[in-house]
Amino acid sequence: MVKNETSSALKIIPLGGLHEIGKNTCVFEYDDEIILLDAGLAFPTEAMHGVNIVLPDTTYLRENRHKIKGMIVTHGHEDHIGGIAFHLKQFEIPVIYGPRLAMAMLEGKLEEAGVRDRTELRTVRPRDVVRLGKHFVVEYIRNTHSIADSFTVAINTPLGVVIHTGDFKIDHTPVDGENFDLQRLAEHGEKGVLCLLSDSTNAEVPGFTPSERSVYPNLDREFGKATGRLFVTTFASSVHRINMILQLAQKHNRAVSVVGRSMLNLIAHARNLGYIKCDDSVFHPLHAVRNMPDEKVLILTTGSQGETMAAMTRIANKEHPHIRIRPGDTVLFSANPIPGNTIAVVNTIDKLMIQGATVVYGRDKGIHVSGHGCQEEQKLMIALTRPKFFVPFHGEHRMLVKHAQTAQSMGIPAENMIIIQNGDVVELTENAIRVGGKVPSGIELVDTTSSGMVSAKVLQERQRMAEEGIVTIAAAIDWNGKLLAKPEIHLRGVVTSVERSLVQKWVQQRIEEILTVRWSEFTQPGE
Amino acid sequence: MVKNETSSALKIIPLGGLHEIGKNTCVFEYDDEIILLDAGLAFPTEAMHGVNIVLPDTTYLRENRHKIKGMIVTHGHEDHIGGIAFHLKQFEIPVIYGPRLAMAMLEGKLEEAGVRDRTELRTVRPRDVVRLGKHFVVEYIRNTHSIADSFTVAINTPLGVVIHTGDFKIDHTPVDGENFDLQRLAEHGEKGVLCLLSDSTNAEVPGFTPSERSVYPNLDREFGKATGRLFVTTFASSVHRINMILQLAQKHNRAVSVVGRSMLNLIAHARNLGYIKCDDSVFHPLHAVRNMPDEKVLILTTGSQGETMAAMTRIANKEHPHIRIRPGDTVLFSANPIPGNTIAVVNTIDKLMIQGATVVYGRDKGIHVSGHGCQEEQKLMIALTRPKFFVPFHGEHRMLVKHAQTAQSMGIPAENMIIIQNGDVVELTENAIRVGGKVPSGIELVDTTSSGMVSAKVLQERQRMAEEGIVTIAAAIDWNGKLLAKPEIHLRGVVTSVERSLVQKWVQQRIEEILTVRWSEFTQPGE
Ligand SMILES: [Zn+2]
Ligand SMILES: [Zn+2]
Ligand SMILES: [Zn+2]
Ligand SMILES: [Zn+2]
Repeated sequence: MVKNETSSALKIIPLGGLHEIGKNTCVFEYDDEIILLDAGLAFPTEAMHGVNIVLPDTTYLRENRHKIKGMIVTHGHEDHIGGIAFHLKQFEIPVIYGPRLAMAMLEGKLEEAGVRDRTELRTVRPRDVVRLGKHFVVEYIRNTHSIADSFTVAINTPLGVVIHTGDFKIDHTPVDGENFDLQRLAEHGEKGVLCLLSDSTNAEVPGFTPSERSVYPNLDREFGKATGRLFVTTFASSVHRINMILQLAQKHNRAVSVVGRSMLNLIAHARNLGYIKCDDSVFHPLHAVRNMPDEKVLILTTGSQGETMAAMTRIANKEHPHIRIRPGDTVLFSANPIPGNTIAVVNTIDKLMIQGATVVYGRDKGIHVSGHGCQEEQKLMIALTRPKFFVPFHGEHRMLVKHAQTAQSMGIPAENMIIIQNGDVVELTENAIRVGGKVPSGIELVDTTSSGMVSAKVLQERQRMAEEGIVTIAAAIDWNGKLLAKPEIHLRGVVTSVERSLVQKWVQQRIEEILTVRWSEFTQPGE
Repeated sequence: MVKNETSSALKIIPLGGLHEIGKNTCVFEYDDEIILLDAGLAFPTEAMHGVNIVLPDTTYLRENRHKIKGMIVTHGHEDHIGGIAFHLKQFEIPVIYGPRLAMAMLEGKLEEAGVRDRTELRTVRPRDVVRLGKHFVVEYIRNTHSIADSFTVAINTPLGVVIHTGDFKIDHTPVDGENFDLQRLAEHGEKGVLCLLSDSTNAEVPGFTPSERSVYPNLDREFGKATGRLFVTTFASSVHRINMILQLAQKHNRAVSVVGRSMLNLIAHARNLGYIKCDDSVFHPLHAVRNMPDEKVLILTTGSQGETMAAMTRIANKEHPHIRIRPGDTVLFSANPIPGNTIAVVNTIDKLMIQGATVVYGRDKGIHVSGHGCQEEQKLMIALTRPKFFVPFHGEHRMLVKHAQTAQSMGIPAENMIIIQNGDVVELTENAIRVGGKVPSGIELVDTTSSGMVSAKVLQERQRMAEEGIVTIAAAIDWNGKLLAKPEIHLRGVVTSVERSLVQKWVQQRIEEILTVRWSEFTQPGE
């Protein structure tokens, strides 16, 4: 790489993922070149009526489309790749690099959106080094996370190396045997890292996240206890967890039926690529397991977060076309509720219990661990990379603040750290880090059923109608200001204790009054 | 009391409070007499658009209004007294007994609703015994809870004593020095308790809930650390907590300004009755503390749950008319988020931090404890009262199941316990407990802004409009099926990428097409 002799700063501009968990999208810019790191989506809050998907504002990318050299994908979670298909409709990304599993999932998404031909997808392996444009050379460093094939990246820039951790925990006994490549991190630390951008998700949690493998004996115990049908629900993307569940199904002689499109999809990709090693004979369609003895059946489903349309939720609501809970069933929730989903999850659990299932849930059961590292792992990341500058990434404000405090406790000076928001333009030089400006950083709300953007105005109208309802009045008035017929009144979502006919009468009276008194005013100037 | 020689069963019918936390409302019925125990409200879920208050279906009480002899109130929380003012508009409750603080709060509510004259309010003191009708004699037994002046009740019926715990923890060092009257519980246990109905809120939590007093040194520490203005937010009804906060304000020489109507209201009542002992000089209006040095000011506010209209939330949203956060402020969240409020609370915390406040929150700080007892306290309650029959009350389904398991671990036989739902008619005799039927147990949704009931139909319409928006088309058509003018199109909450004028054109074309082809059909039969 040619060392650039001008005094250009490296710009780091997160468009999503800061002050939130979701829609991680980061811009790296140097001179006339931009590379992107991940482009995820977020899920709407309850107040975003009719919205399915939240995307970052990409005004900055649209305006600077000619600079975009390509994208680096760290792993296949929706909050890292879910936005790409939408963005490709708006601006060009000449090439996208990423791990095999993420690229397989992304390819499906792009095909579904009809934009597969708008970019080139290139898969990477651990320690692969890829060049984007003149200024960026990116090294993929294997890390450990809840999805398989996940990476930390070292971005070599004209000013030095910037390490973006991606999402990580430090799992010394990973289920797939793919160890975190701590050696490469250490080597970068030895040579000098200009800046570290690190995952802050669990910055408020002391200690270490237990290894994914620690879940195995606890799941094994619960498998052993179940005497009837066994249901297990987890995140569709948790490859390692699904792997262990499938191993346990074989150990406990249960035929597996997978229910839920996203999970079927992931399992197909993960088996193709060897991340899930499991014989075809393990899997059975739902209609086949229905005739097997209860104690020989495992149904693996989506819906661990109480999502309305997911399989486990529909089963609990007695809305699933093929599955009803019956006494003797056991349901394992191998996932903790994400804040905001708690109510939906506990309601689902209660409904399953009322229908007779034994439900196993809660932290004390040990059947779920986080995919993100806690404070001690965040410290280890800083200790290995020894960065000059530090920016906490991937987290809500409180988490970023806590992560910065952790870094400060390890000797990184306060002036070498900044807490930033989406849209902040971080200007990084060899000697200083600062926020040098701001680009548009709002959100775009997508209603996938109408495949359109939901504007703030539309949202306000929806909110208002949701709270108050709407009254429509149609009245035909002749040229003399007389009603030609009874006005038509429609109430939708309106609370009223009076009869509709009475409302009709009141409205008619009021219209007639107004017509009598003020018709002349209405008709004077224009007509 | 005359022992009734017939074989009548005692009926216990919860209309609210089971399979949920909220709107606790319980019917006790024997022969031709009904007494009520508490009548609370619940708060709406996000899907209940425009609804402010959720009440139980009171069809059963309306149909049996002639039987109602009176009501027993256990304590002043909204989930125990918030429904009474609404019910009094629908059926008569001749007399309501309750503790002084609850009655003071209730009186205000009834006056506001214009129903103060529809019942008689009678205050009770610890160990007071009140008779209702021929069959019920109720003893008030002091307990400990997060609000002052809270009671467990022993209901003497012709079949034996039924103990309803109300809400309780077992706090051996209560802030107000009013100890749990364990002696009376023990005496009932010695004489024989037919049935125990017990608070299940923390049935899933092992161990003991710490004493309310344990919060004091932790709050003291945080008060000591604050160098600028100090904000403290907690539940408006947490009398003991507010008491300690006021004591600490005096210790740390801070003038107190209370912000938030419900908290001002409670403090006034609690001071009147001596539950909060605090000199007038401690309290200052907001405009007075604005001129004091920052380190002399404490602002005590509502909004610990991130409730949209509460003071702390409005401050965080920069919407409060008189208060803005500035760097140097410290905010203590002396409350844990109730599930479902987590997102609102953490968003509030983040906004306060972004504006420069130091925010102290989270379980590890020890500045909040629960008002409900955990498993060991639930066991102690069972051990003291030694009930023949046991029904877990006040909790979601999982909690009820866990509470029953706890009781079973202490030797209560499974056949002597039942897990019930709202509307279940528990039939209790000296020898058996069973569910003997079901009364209507739905919910009524109140939109307080229109003071009307929100029906399921209205809710569905609101939900639909919130998700999809609404299109209204008004067209004036003459007798020959010709459009008299351009149709008027209104889109509200509708997602569309096309121009409004184009929609107008399409609609007009379509209407004209239909009129041309099908006008004869429309007009044939009727006209
Ligand atoms: Zn992520
Ligand atoms: Zn991830
Ligand atoms: Zn309660
Ligand atoms: Zn209570």
